Amino acid sequence: MPPVPLDWTISIRIQMNHNESLLSQIHSPTDVKSIEEKDLTQLAAEIREELIRVLSETGGHLGPNLGVVELTIALHRVFETPRDKFLFDVSHQGYVHKLLTGRRDRFSTIRQYEGLNGFLLRTESEHDCYGAGHAGTALSAALGMAAGRDQVGGDEHVVCVAGDAAFTCGVSFEALNNVATTTKRLIVVLNDNEWSIAKNVGAVAEYLNRIVTNPAFSDLHEKAGKFVEWLGGKYARSLAHKVEAGMKNLLAPSVIFEDLGLRYYGPIDGHDIPLLIRTFEFLKTQNEPVILHILTQKGKGYAPALAKPDKFHGLGKFQLDTGETLASPSPTYSELLGKTLADFADHNNKIVAITAAMPTGTGLVNFAKRHPAKCYDVGIAEEHAALFASGLAIQGLKPFLAIYSTFMQRAYDMIIHDIALQNLNVCLCMDRAGLSGDDGPTHHGLFDIAYLRPVPGLVHMQPKDEEEFVDMLWTMANYHEGPIAIRYPRGSGTGAVPKAQPKILEIGKSEVIRHGKQVAIVALGNMVEVALDTAAMLEEKGISTAVINARWIKPLDAATIEFFARGCEVLCTMEDHVLTNGFGCGVMELLADQHVTTPVVRIGWPDQFVEHGTVPILRAKHGLTAEAAVEKIVSALPATKVSSRTIPAA
Amino acid sequence: MPPVPLDWTISIRIQMNHNESLLSQIHSPTDVKSIEEKDLTQLAAEIREELIRVLSETGGHLGPNLGVVELTIALHRVFETPRDKFLFDVSHQGYVHKLLTGRRDRFSTIRQYEGLNGFLLRTESEHDCYGAGHAGTALSAALGMAAGRDQVGGDEHVVCVAGDAAFTCGVSFEALNNVATTTKRLIVVLNDNEWSIAKNVGAVAEYLNRIVTNPAFSDLHEKAGKFVEWLGGKYARSLAHKVEAGMKNLLAPSVIFEDLGLRYYGPIDGHDIPLLIRTFEFLKTQNEPVILHILTQKGKGYAPALAKPDKFHGLGKFQLDTGETLASPSPTYSELLGKTLADFADHNNKIVAITAAMPTGTGLVNFAKRHPAKCYDVGIAEEHAALFASGLAIQGLKPFLAIYSTFMQRAYDMIIHDIALQNLNVCLCMDRAGLSGDDGPTHHGLFDIAYLRPVPGLVHMQPKDEEEFVDMLWTMANYHEGPIAIRYPRGSGTGAVPKAQPKILEIGKSEVIRHGKQVAIVALGNMVEVALDTAAMLEEKGISTAVINARWIKPLDAATIEFFARGCEVLCTMEDHVLTNGFGCGVMELLADQHVTTPVVRIGWPDQFVEHGTVPILRAKHGLTAEAAVEKIVSALPATKVSSRTIPAA
Repeated sequence: MPPVPLDWTISIRIQMNHNESLLSQIHSPTDVKSIEEKDLTQLAAEIREELIRVLSETGGHLGPNLGVVELTIALHRVFETPRDKFLFDVSHQGYVHKLLTGRRDRFSTIRQYEGLNGFLLRTESEHDCYGAGHAGTALSAALGMAAGRDQVGGDEHVVCVAGDAAFTCGVSFEALNNVATTTKRLIVVLNDNEWSIAKNVGAVAEYLNRIVTNPAFSDLHEKAGKFVEWLGGKYARSLAHKVEAGMKNLLAPSVIFEDLGLRYYGPIDGHDIPLLIRTFEFLKTQNEPVILHILTQKGKGYAPALAKPDKFHGLGKFQLDTGETLASPSPTYSELLGKTLADFADHNNKIVAITAAMPTGTGLVNFAKRHPAKCYDVGIAEEHAALFASGLAIQGLKPFLAIYSTFMQRAYDMIIHDIALQNLNVCLCMDRAGLSGDDGPTHHGLFDIAYLRPVPGLVHMQPKDEEEFVDMLWTMANYHEGPIAIRYPRGSGTGAVPKAQPKILEIGKSEVIRHGKQVAIVALGNMVEVALDTAAMLEEKGISTAVINARWIKPLDAATIEFFARGCEVLCTMEDHVLTNGFGCGVMELLADQHVTTPVVRIGWPDQFVEHGTVPILRAKHGLTAEAAVEKIVSALPATKVSSRTIPAA
Repeated sequence: MPPVPLDWTISIRIQMNHNESLLSQIHSPTDVKSIEEKDLTQLAAEIREELIRVLSETGGHLGPNLGVVELTIALHRVFETPRDKFLFDVSHQGYVHKLLTGRRDRFSTIRQYEGLNGFLLRTESEHDCYGAGHAGTALSAALGMAAGRDQVGGDEHVVCVAGDAAFTCGVSFEALNNVATTTKRLIVVLNDNEWSIAKNVGAVAEYLNRIVTNPAFSDLHEKAGKFVEWLGGKYARSLAHKVEAGMKNLLAPSVIFEDLGLRYYGPIDGHDIPLLIRTFEFLKTQNEPVILHILTQKGKGYAPALAKPDKFHGLGKFQLDTGETLASPSPTYSELLGKTLADFADHNNKIVAITAAMPTGTGLVNFAKRHPAKCYDVGIAEEHAALFASGLAIQGLKPFLAIYSTFMQRAYDMIIHDIALQNLNVCLCMDRAGLSGDDGPTHHGLFDIAYLRPVPGLVHMQPKDEEEFVDMLWTMANYHEGPIAIRYPRGSGTGAVPKAQPKILEIGKSEVIRHGKQVAIVALGNMVEVALDTAAMLEEKGISTAVINARWIKPLDAATIEFFARGCEVLCTMEDHVLTNGFGCGVMELLADQHVTTPVVRIGWPDQFVEHGTVPILRAKHGLTAEAAVEKIVSALPATKVSSRTIPAA
């Protein structure tokens, strides 16, 4: 893209003595201010080294953080958190901020259980005024904070940093529409790396690109350098009026932002620390909402990340020298989705697919390669994605909308009001359903059963393994008419290899995996494995146990569940979802309607925001293991009935 | 606003002989095409008369429909539904379309039970290709339909009509961002009446206003008139290249839309039928996405509606000559919300309020009058509203966000990810919770318990009457810390007059209204009245019945509910919400966790989209009456147990 000289890379000096480093001297943002300005480039290099070194062990959002090193240094140089407020959109690029705000000692624990979170968290630091994990929220929240400051008569600065991709989110636009009428003091930094998770899409991306590639820009950039020299570094505040005159020369035309009531500055080089510092010193004197357009390079300073920005947006452990990651032992559900839909579409011209800026994450990249004209990447725009799917369905197509369970929350109204109410053939693929692990509470997909089960006419299901996953996709593509949703977890499952010819599964018909008399476990999806382990352990105790693979959340297999419930002493449900309004709750509704009063033990996630950590650690902590299930089931069996239960089960 | 001559009004000739009218000759869009063009003004006048006459009896969205009479005639004159596709945003302005598409005979049944719906419905007519009820969906759906057409090689036109207020919705922007990369053929009509439900807000509204008030515009408008004469009416298609040259003269500068990849035309007078016809004839020849900006007058042709556009946006029965509506016997919950919050804010400077373009509907207009600087109208932007509230809360304020239950679905992700996860002091006021009645399935608020109950840490409640409503608001404002939601129905309740000094209600403590031994009814909110009637009827049958006013959906009053459940033979729950994942489901979860196996009878709405109609009619149909409850409870009592229930309750 740009004519900005961003092509240098740092060398990786991992063995450097950290005690002598500048970074080791920084315990709070105050320390950032005490470093000599000429040494800040060295600090930036050290931060990059730290990021690359730690993340090669922990995984995380490497590319975005490498891109904002200079920006974050400049922000902490000019502003004063926690008094001033920084909001980072998504906040996956907040690692540098963490390193500069007293969390360097714990940085190697990032994304580990009980360690630092991979996003900003209000509970983690007073310097984190706003947490996030989903895109597009920062500008609205910043506007609320600015309005709140104005209400209570405060004078702190509110600075919102958002990537260009955040401007494909509708809510960012809703915020832009309200800025001018809400406050006179707000600083928005548009961090334009031309590459969010996938390459940014749509008219706004093209618009920003037009600004950047404007022939006037090279000239502007040159002027910017001279302007900074002229400022001389120290007198920016007192020379505000002169500064303003000078800054105007940096203006490239951006009518859109100006028309929306934000004064536009830029674009400037987001890796030029002195320029950033001088610009922020100027912007903090302004009495109108401003947007500063900066250009950065995602992955800057690490060649493998520059070469594959999509891969290095967020990733697991990797080899320091090559950037190679461990291949997963079997294809993930996401990869399987892309491949399977591509196979289907070879013979079924009704299939189209939609992603909201996550072609790689959802696996649709594989579909797009083979069927580019049938794959739509609409940007981080889940609401539009769902409506767009509804329009495609009306034209007789079969759209598959692949979105993470937690992000599908954005499209909830459209699922009810547009897709289900109109009974349209839209296939919702809820990726990362269940615990997402390292990413933590903003990314767990633990609510989709609760919010989808009440939606009339919407079929919802979860496969126990990869083979059943493909059968379910086949059923969606070739058999079912009407809205339908499938949830599946992050990563891979048991590794069961799908058959060459998938089969249609009967809607609402579960699979009885093993019979048993005393206990019946109705398990959903990836919990079937746990159910089988539980059953084996119960059998060892002489307790005869049936296991039913539920398959369908809605409609439930009423006949089978009722049959087992009537025949057993305790019914147990298992789900990778919160218990409240979950799958087990649906089973209880069914039994109540059939006047079956067999006690029900429900295994699932508790009514709290579950922290980050590995799936095994968190399952053990919260009782989603076979051991925990055995304990709960045994204590509910009549033989061990406790006195608090006054009404016998049968 | 505009210099367009829109100031004529039609006289109301209600007694006109309808058999001789032009309107009576229209049975399908084909008939619109057979009327002579010079007579279309007469047709428009007749349509206005019909709208005013019928809606004075039925109520409905009068103002918006009076504004689009000429537009709708022109659309049906130029395009051919059902082959061509019209999408009307919200579709509350679709009455004229209904009158022209074979539904005139049934028009007097509009919004009545089993009559025409007040919005467009795919199931109602083949001419309704897309239903709606919530704002901002049409552009995305139209883009999906255009993409689908392109996929299957169709050549029909897709025309999307959206009001200026729809452009305050983020999802409209998400769609705009995707238009240029998705299709080359899409016609968007921006119906600018400068007045959506409330006066339109924000930068986009100001931007549109700048276009309209541009001094060049009067000149442009004059040119438009001449241009139409020049076109001569019939040769638009064959003269496409000349037409294009001519049309360019009608262009006022709109860089935003052009920069987003839509060719902009306008603004033109949206009440000038010949001009509209000629313009659409031209636009349908274009091979690029276009947006036509038209200016209309909401309420045009009816003086009372012109005088009070906000009131006449949507209203109940009214007096034909004066526009007077029946005053409701006691203040509605909405009115009470505005007044109460205003009272509180007189003494509590932390209280601020937010509406998403519904200051009148939510009652916040009363708050805004007394505390204008503390009331934010953010446009139809529920996502932004929720995030904005989160920012205000972080600054120590207590924001009350008043949004209809069904529209709060738009903010679902923000409620989870921003408000609840960060445990912020945001007060969610869920207006129109429960059945909304005449407006039908797009407006019923029947899902909020299902989607909010799984949200960790969110308190949720519903008052039984107005007095308790004010106590609950007092508790939100002065006592509770953390996210909290209150749901309340449309209209007024029992009319219980709030006390001068409200009291704090203990969170999670229900109210036992009457004691009884055999049956315990735990009723929520407006269903307490039904519960009391049910109890009275059961007592007449000699069945001793307790009634508990639940108050709290979350946290439930576990102790009281468990106590009554253990002591009675049948527990009954009542809620104005779907049964699936509803309040009763929460009660069942509680009882299961406490190993209580008393049978539970749940009264609420079934698992289907409930149609439109009055509340009494629909309650009777779907079993939410005391009579129906008595029947269900009696059949569940042990004495009448049927053989299908094999496990005795106790």
